[in-house]
Amino acid sequence: MNQDELKAQTGKESVKYIKSGMIVGLGTGSTVRYMVDELGKQVQAGNLTNIIGVTTSSRTTKQAESLGITIKNLDDVDHIDLTIDGADEISDDFQGIKGGGGALLWEKIVANASDKVMWIVDQSKLVHKLGKFPLPVEVIPFGSQHVFARLEKKGYKPSWRMDGDKKFRTDENNYIIDLHLGEIDHPAQLADELIHMVGVVETGLFLNRVNDVIVGTNEGPKVLHAR
Amino acid sequence: MNQDELKAQTGKESVKYIKSGMIVGLGTGSTVRYMVDELGKQVQAGNLTNIIGVTTSSRTTKQAESLGITIKNLDDVDHIDLTIDGADEISDDFQGIKGGGGALLWEKIVANASDKVMWIVDQSKLVHKLGKFPLPVEVIPFGSQHVFARLEKKGYKPSWRMDGDKKFRTDENNYIIDLHLGEIDHPAQLADELIHMVGVVETGLFLNRVNDVIVGTNEGPKVLHAR
Repeated sequence: MNQDELKAQTGKESVKYIKSGMIVGLGTGSTVRYMVDELGKQVQAGNLTNIIGVTTSSRTTKQAESLGITIKNLDDVDHIDLTIDGADEISDDFQGIKGGGGALLWEKIVANASDKVMWIVDQSKLVHKLGKFPLPVEVIPFGSQHVFARLEKKGYKPSWRMDGDKKFRTDENNYIIDLHLGEIDHPAQLADELIHMVGVVETGLFLNRVNDVIVGTNEGPKVLHAR
Repeated sequence: MNQDELKAQTGKESVKYIKSGMIVGLGTGSTVRYMVDELGKQVQAGNLTNIIGVTTSSRTTKQAESLGITIKNLDDVDHIDLTIDGADEISDDFQGIKGGGGALLWEKIVANASDKVMWIVDQSKLVHKLGKFPLPVEVIPFGSQHVFARLEKKGYKPSWRMDGDKKFRTDENNYIIDLHLGEIDHPAQLADELIHMVGVVETGLFLNRVNDVIVGTNEGPKVLHAR
């Protein structure tokens, strides 16, 4: 199977974990697209009823609404039962890097309000150690050149996330700086250092946040239980 | 002297620390207004030349430009020589609470890029321990009701900063939640806890950031050296 087929497989599989009446956090990204498509089908077929979706990006909101999934704002629900989202890298010990799609901030806020978090990925996302995937850091535009310079000085090899000729803007109108670290030896320490930098809003390090991972493989979807 | 006269006194005094050729960070607030007025006078009189101002709010930008002070974006200068700003509370050990005016984020970013930071206050701002003044916390609007609920659960007595009927918006379009703590026993610990909360952008705790404080008193401006 090619990567798209593996993504479709895991996206479809994850919808089996959604029960009628659930408030579901809907992630962002190419694998999640398949999950939302399948959820839309199940809702339209009447197999899943009273589903409320809470989205993590304006893109996912658009897709879900076009499929007839009821969407509420995070602030209009008091909790989320299950959030299903993608990930860019997952380490042996179930730590993750997210934000390749630029939605890390809303994704982390939604995950934080969720009873359970499930990540759906194709097998290429499983790594021994985090860091080959560039680590996204969301920063306030004001003074961000100084944050960039500080990251460069620390040897974190920053680059600006671009959108054509312009700097990419997140849903909250912030910038993203990607750090090219190679290997991250101490993710918790790094997350702590970055979040204390003035101007940094959030990082793509998702530590101790996922409960289950569904991996698309040639032998079919594989479920890994993290915590 | 009344409070306004004390503010005018310290604002005026602080301009004596600005030398020709300096890049100066210009804070926000009622005391800073007097400082910027005086700086404008000195620039117009030709007593201070080649001054570049970097502002911490759209309000200060407006005021400074109307007085003929050259303003540059923070990202267009590589450092700031001296930032002069107000403070809402300063403790015995020179820790501060800022953000009563709502500009804490840009103020902290500018302070962070500055070689020296000076706070100008009337004597009512000096306290033994921080916390009587409500501590501002700047939060991402998305999901902020959940952040509010978490702060409430922790017993931090949060309230939304309002602007008439609507929630106040910062220059970065975020909300502010004010914490009514009474006394803050461990400011560093609290700052650490808050900055790790997903959705929190910055707090009004300015720890180990000020070099000198000018206090307006009935006996004239008093300079306190912090570090």
